[in-house]
Amino acid sequence: MEQILPFEQLYHFTHTIFIKMGCSEADATTASKALLSADLRGIDSHGVARLSGYARLWEAKRVNTSPDIKIIHETPSTATIDGDAGLGLVVAPFAMQVAIEKAKIAGTGWVSVCNSNHFGIAGYHAMLPLQHDMIGMAMTNASALVAPTFSVERMLGTNPIAVAVPAQDQPPFVADMATTTAANGKLEILQRKQADAPLGWVQDVDGHATTNAATTNANILKNKGSLLPLGSDREHGSHKGYALGSIVDIFSGVLSGGSYGPWVPPFPAYVPMPDYQPGKGLGHFFGAMRIDAFRPAADFKLHMDKWIERFRQAKPAEGHDRVLIPGDPEREMETIRMKEGIPVVGSVVEDLQQLGLKFGVVL
Amino acid sequence: MEQILPFEQLYHFTHTIFIKMGCSEADATTASKALLSADLRGIDSHGVARLSGYARLWEAKRVNTSPDIKIIHETPSTATIDGDAGLGLVVAPFAMQVAIEKAKIAGTGWVSVCNSNHFGIAGYHAMLPLQHDMIGMAMTNASALVAPTFSVERMLGTNPIAVAVPAQDQPPFVADMATTTAANGKLEILQRKQADAPLGWVQDVDGHATTNAATTNANILKNKGSLLPLGSDREHGSHKGYALGSIVDIFSGVLSGGSYGPWVPPFPAYVPMPDYQPGKGLGHFFGAMRIDAFRPAADFKLHMDKWIERFRQAKPAEGHDRVLIPGDPEREMETIRMKEGIPVVGSVVEDLQQLGLKFGVVL
Repeated sequence: MEQILPFEQLYHFTHTIFIKMGCSEADATTASKALLSADLRGIDSHGVARLSGYARLWEAKRVNTSPDIKIIHETPSTATIDGDAGLGLVVAPFAMQVAIEKAKIAGTGWVSVCNSNHFGIAGYHAMLPLQHDMIGMAMTNASALVAPTFSVERMLGTNPIAVAVPAQDQPPFVADMATTTAANGKLEILQRKQADAPLGWVQDVDGHATTNAATTNANILKNKGSLLPLGSDREHGSHKGYALGSIVDIFSGVLSGGSYGPWVPPFPAYVPMPDYQPGKGLGHFFGAMRIDAFRPAADFKLHMDKWIERFRQAKPAEGHDRVLIPGDPEREMETIRMKEGIPVVGSVVEDLQQLGLKFGVVL
Repeated sequence: MEQILPFEQLYHFTHTIFIKMGCSEADATTASKALLSADLRGIDSHGVARLSGYARLWEAKRVNTSPDIKIIHETPSTATIDGDAGLGLVVAPFAMQVAIEKAKIAGTGWVSVCNSNHFGIAGYHAMLPLQHDMIGMAMTNASALVAPTFSVERMLGTNPIAVAVPAQDQPPFVADMATTTAANGKLEILQRKQADAPLGWVQDVDGHATTNAATTNANILKNKGSLLPLGSDREHGSHKGYALGSIVDIFSGVLSGGSYGPWVPPFPAYVPMPDYQPGKGLGHFFGAMRIDAFRPAADFKLHMDKWIERFRQAKPAEGHDRVLIPGDPEREMETIRMKEGIPVVGSVVEDLQQLGLKFGVVL
């Protein structure tokens, strides 16, 4: 049965589990904040629901909880980082901090990361530079679930892109999107309800459009259906979603010396590693651009307020009372959940209780 | 009637028109190459078909053919450029060259441009860094034709993003996409044929899905229909297309001190300027990333070959014989058209002949 759990309770539990997995105090804090930002922002699929998945990766020795995260190559505005198989939740904030430090001196900082693991939600990392009056960017590759346009083979992950832009009195603009028509988490929800998916989200093993949500996701590895790139089909621009997902894969995997395409390591620990690895682990890519590397930050932020205010005033379509700015729904959700607690579905509560039993931690 | 014209003939004509408009020899060369790259690559809407449109902007004194293009702000990895109302076809290569020079020293170069005009196809500019073993990026805002998700008001241009990545033996990866479901040029073609558009490309003034291509484009300003962001509707991810178009607008317009959103100056010279301007002219944004700022260029390019080869081998769907890599169709078209000439539709031939008469130049 669904339970509403206070953020503090989930945070304490998550932090303790990470400590039990061998994380340092600092790393457990970093990882817990990053992971639970998903639950706070309403992206339930990427939050505490995945904690036992991270634990299983650690048990399978695919995650190193005391990594020696290292810069292996750099220039004034760039760095390449080897995450030493650490939790992406820890490696990513480290890498973004390097990008921020580069930007302070060179105007911008760009960091490509190999040998990492899943980093939670891209939006959390993209927002880290905001407090420095910088624009933030984060992307990551992931194991293949998505078929390119005209293909029936899964070649790309849901490869998200996040961009965060500071404003003055308005809240920041925060876009955080999978490069697929629908994020994996949305399919998980449909599967749980045994509901059909809209046409255009998935295709079956033969490349035919299907509304059967079960074709993908948990069952995808069995029956070889695929998620579809943003745009759904060629006529509606799926070649653009395919290109966007590819750019994320190249910047994250090929540029860093990580793995890429169909060879990216899977998140579920029970799925065997691909038989070939062109590079090391998952890849991420981060950017930080100092606003005042382009124009005075105060000017920019006033114009961002004007941009946001004007877009909020765009005439709504029938049946809608307002036009949203990217980041609005997640920010509003965070305010509510910080106050009222985080709803956790029954199956996840049970999963966390099992995890707690294993590690000797009470939820 | 459609004519097949050799590239050299169109180039000579275009170059002479730019000279007659007051461009220097060097600027006329730069502009002609950039403009005609669209015709060569099969993006007919953005090539010579627009030459008379550029001439009308010049006649209306909205384009300055002897601009003093200036860096107005810079850091080691960034610059902001004022295009002095020059042709975007000239301002953009100048700006990209600045990005390349920055990248040589700082690892990456990022240039935001204000006070410019339409720059042709984004892909041309994104490809300029390739010869330096750099990844190139180009984007631009444009006058508003696109409604945000849940809105019936046109707030964004078709705001394209292009990314070009070098490989070793394989041709480069070149993605060049409007952030809408369908580029404006595709609607122009349907209108010319009096054909309907697929559902999901446009909406009418009340925000209802429509297949009437005439609702938009040439007639859009009369009847206030809109192009739709990539994704078409909320269920299929149009909020992601809306976010991508917004990011392009912010990087190009707000960061540079250019105009943005519904205030971006229109391309057709007969359309009056918006009554308010938050900044100067159109904006662009360019990036150049030195490959060896991340890893040795030879390693990267070998892995890009592997990436491309693997994706070419992805299992095709029924009815398709191959999976394409972004840039394949345009490159193949360029090879054919360089050899066999460029097909120019009858109405464009007539338009060019009229333009020639006005400037005393024979097509």
